[in-house]
Amino acid sequence: MTKELKYSDEFIRLLADQYPTPFYLYDERMLREKARLFNRAFEWNAGYKEYFAVKANPNPELLKIFRSEGLGCDCSSLCELLICERLGIVGDDIMFTSNDTPVSEYAYAKKLNAIINLDDISDLGILEGCGGLPEVICFRWNPGALYNVSSVIGNPVEAKYGLTTEQLAVAFAAAKSKGVKRFGLHTMIASNLLDEEFFVLTARSLFERIVELRDRVGVNISFVNLGGGFGVAYKPEQTPLDLLKIGRAISGEYNKFFDGGDLSCKIFTESGRLVAAEAGVLVTRVIHKKDTYKKYVGVDASMANLMRPGMYGAYHHITVVGKSNVDGYSNETVDVVGSLCENCDKFAIDRNLPVLDIGDLLVIHDAGAHGYSMGFQYNGKLRCAELLLEESGDIRIIRRAETFDDYVATLNINNW
Amino acid sequence: MTKELKYSDEFIRLLADQYPTPFYLYDERMLREKARLFNRAFEWNAGYKEYFAVKANPNPELLKIFRSEGLGCDCSSLCELLICERLGIVGDDIMFTSNDTPVSEYAYAKKLNAIINLDDISDLGILEGCGGLPEVICFRWNPGALYNVSSVIGNPVEAKYGLTTEQLAVAFAAAKSKGVKRFGLHTMIASNLLDEEFFVLTARSLFERIVELRDRVGVNISFVNLGGGFGVAYKPEQTPLDLLKIGRAISGEYNKFFDGGDLSCKIFTESGRLVAAEAGVLVTRVIHKKDTYKKYVGVDASMANLMRPGMYGAYHHITVVGKSNVDGYSNETVDVVGSLCENCDKFAIDRNLPVLDIGDLLVIHDAGAHGYSMGFQYNGKLRCAELLLEESGDIRIIRRAETFDDYVATLNINNW
Repeated sequence: MTKELKYSDEFIRLLADQYPTPFYLYDERMLREKARLFNRAFEWNAGYKEYFAVKANPNPELLKIFRSEGLGCDCSSLCELLICERLGIVGDDIMFTSNDTPVSEYAYAKKLNAIINLDDISDLGILEGCGGLPEVICFRWNPGALYNVSSVIGNPVEAKYGLTTEQLAVAFAAAKSKGVKRFGLHTMIASNLLDEEFFVLTARSLFERIVELRDRVGVNISFVNLGGGFGVAYKPEQTPLDLLKIGRAISGEYNKFFDGGDLSCKIFTESGRLVAAEAGVLVTRVIHKKDTYKKYVGVDASMANLMRPGMYGAYHHITVVGKSNVDGYSNETVDVVGSLCENCDKFAIDRNLPVLDIGDLLVIHDAGAHGYSMGFQYNGKLRCAELLLEESGDIRIIRRAETFDDYVATLNINNW
Repeated sequence: MTKELKYSDEFIRLLADQYPTPFYLYDERMLREKARLFNRAFEWNAGYKEYFAVKANPNPELLKIFRSEGLGCDCSSLCELLICERLGIVGDDIMFTSNDTPVSEYAYAKKLNAIINLDDISDLGILEGCGGLPEVICFRWNPGALYNVSSVIGNPVEAKYGLTTEQLAVAFAAAKSKGVKRFGLHTMIASNLLDEEFFVLTARSLFERIVELRDRVGVNISFVNLGGGFGVAYKPEQTPLDLLKIGRAISGEYNKFFDGGDLSCKIFTESGRLVAAEAGVLVTRVIHKKDTYKKYVGVDASMANLMRPGMYGAYHHITVVGKSNVDGYSNETVDVVGSLCENCDKFAIDRNLPVLDIGDLLVIHDAGAHGYSMGFQYNGKLRCAELLLEESGDIRIIRRAETFDDYVATLNINNW
């Protein structure tokens, strides 16, 4: 099976002639399509908003694209807030979702009038200490053993995020007594999930909490944030999520709870992966081949550029420019490796690929989320450039490659 | 059991009053002691040299300390070579050990007259293409199934490094025929190992290869590089390696092979961890406590500063300033977490520690190697400062903390 090619072989070849490999390449058209898909899936809900998880890809040019499609930004740190502020993304267009949060970051989120999503009951007092509570407060719910999803993300009971179900009532009651006017409820209990039913279950559980919180503490939740967790079909044999179907099913649940009643709520989501992953590829060149106890193909990218395979054993599909979708090439099974002195620096293990030659260009797919942003400089490696294919067909460098000067920027070189 | 305190509680408190947490702190005296320990363990071998693995900690101030103790540098990339060059560390003081190596990096290593350690037989031709072969060549040996160490580092047969045993003879014969004058043999098959016997076994296997290569292809190996892998007793209950004992045992093996014969060889090592880990600590402050399905203590450091616990599940001992070595504090079991939106961002899981309060200072031990150097900026996190406690007792900032400007340095901010 092969994945649909996002960029033609000829196009990748032309780019690689012009820009040194490795580089990231994003497709504006596809980024917009994904953003619109989220909007369409939840268009039945007045006030729906997808808050793009900035951690997945903090490049400002991508955030600008998403903003123009009506998306907000989910920020998890001061730097992410600062990027949004510089782009003019403030107020309700930011959801600030963090944990173990420094007081200074709560203060900054408040200054930007972001929607603040509290991770713990104690955060209410911390935020209050930042010059008083805002009008809107969201709490993050950890359902604990309520779901049986331990095979998916590890046991929620072991997850550091959120309040327990019991704590929710206490927290919302406290917020109400302190004068908070509007309330939201958030959860995030899955990552990269392809089970559509799960998202419906999550929504239903949040709706149940809304009813429970109204009945127990007289708090009206005006929005729920379903979190992210929308998975990408990284493997060709996987079935992609049908987001429109998920939206319809959640609409059905919503109507059961809210239709004709006195309650309503806005739906928010907080996906990074499903919005950005598929529009991005990492282009890298074969620079080495070796045949020892196994066959290895070495490329000029490494874990420094894309850590998911090495860190999580994650699968990223790889196609070979001029070979993968062309008849007449025989295949062989190889490990595709980067140059780090870490044996886990492998983009693929025992992967069946067309026989590769030095100079061949590989396209590592679905790298637009949690790709560049997770990169490091271990082993003295430098992070690469990011290119954007604009809707106009133009190519723009939206991040330059690092240099040695970047690598030593925090050292006082005059003291050497 | 507790680990010996490297810095007094009072000293850490004073530092944390003066410098924002988190920060790394290294002890020059201890770094020198460890460097000298390597030299003493192998003083029986004329020409012995420890090449500090720069990837473990590339801070130039540490490299300068090691150089003054007679250590060389093991480099794995262009940036590491460039740091050494700026420090005046060149020639035989550099061993360049990499894999999947770009041609340009071989060329630079050659320009610096570094000892080049080839990872594959094909690298001989690649290096030859960089203006001819140098006088000295080292090959990296992967023993494959020769050792039964699969429980230690994964199966060497699955490791991307080095040549097979059979390939060694072909490679050395080829190098000799191309006019190479001096030869070295390297292996690196373990990481963070506390089994002293293993290092003796490694040395013996290298000595056996020397005899075999002399007999089979008439090549005299003039140095062997035992690699690194010397483990640190991260857990208090672990027994530290006795490096002097290992040195004596290897001396015994050496004498069996070389005493009175016509062969001799220099011994090199390439440790990063055992030289630097124990002299470094990460100092961080408790900024949050929560009690949900488990008890969590949140600190102001995260995986961005120290990735080993999150990435490998590695143990780092933690002591609490003013509490760990003081009577009268009751303990509790907590997860010590950072603020990344990654559930693996935990410095400790189910760790029994004195009951902690907001503001308490924690010392995360044995963080001097593979600590700062593996850090990333995921979630918009910034990497922290590094401090050096000099032998004089003075404190010096040897790396400043990152700022938002560093975070966005590769973006064209004028285009925002």
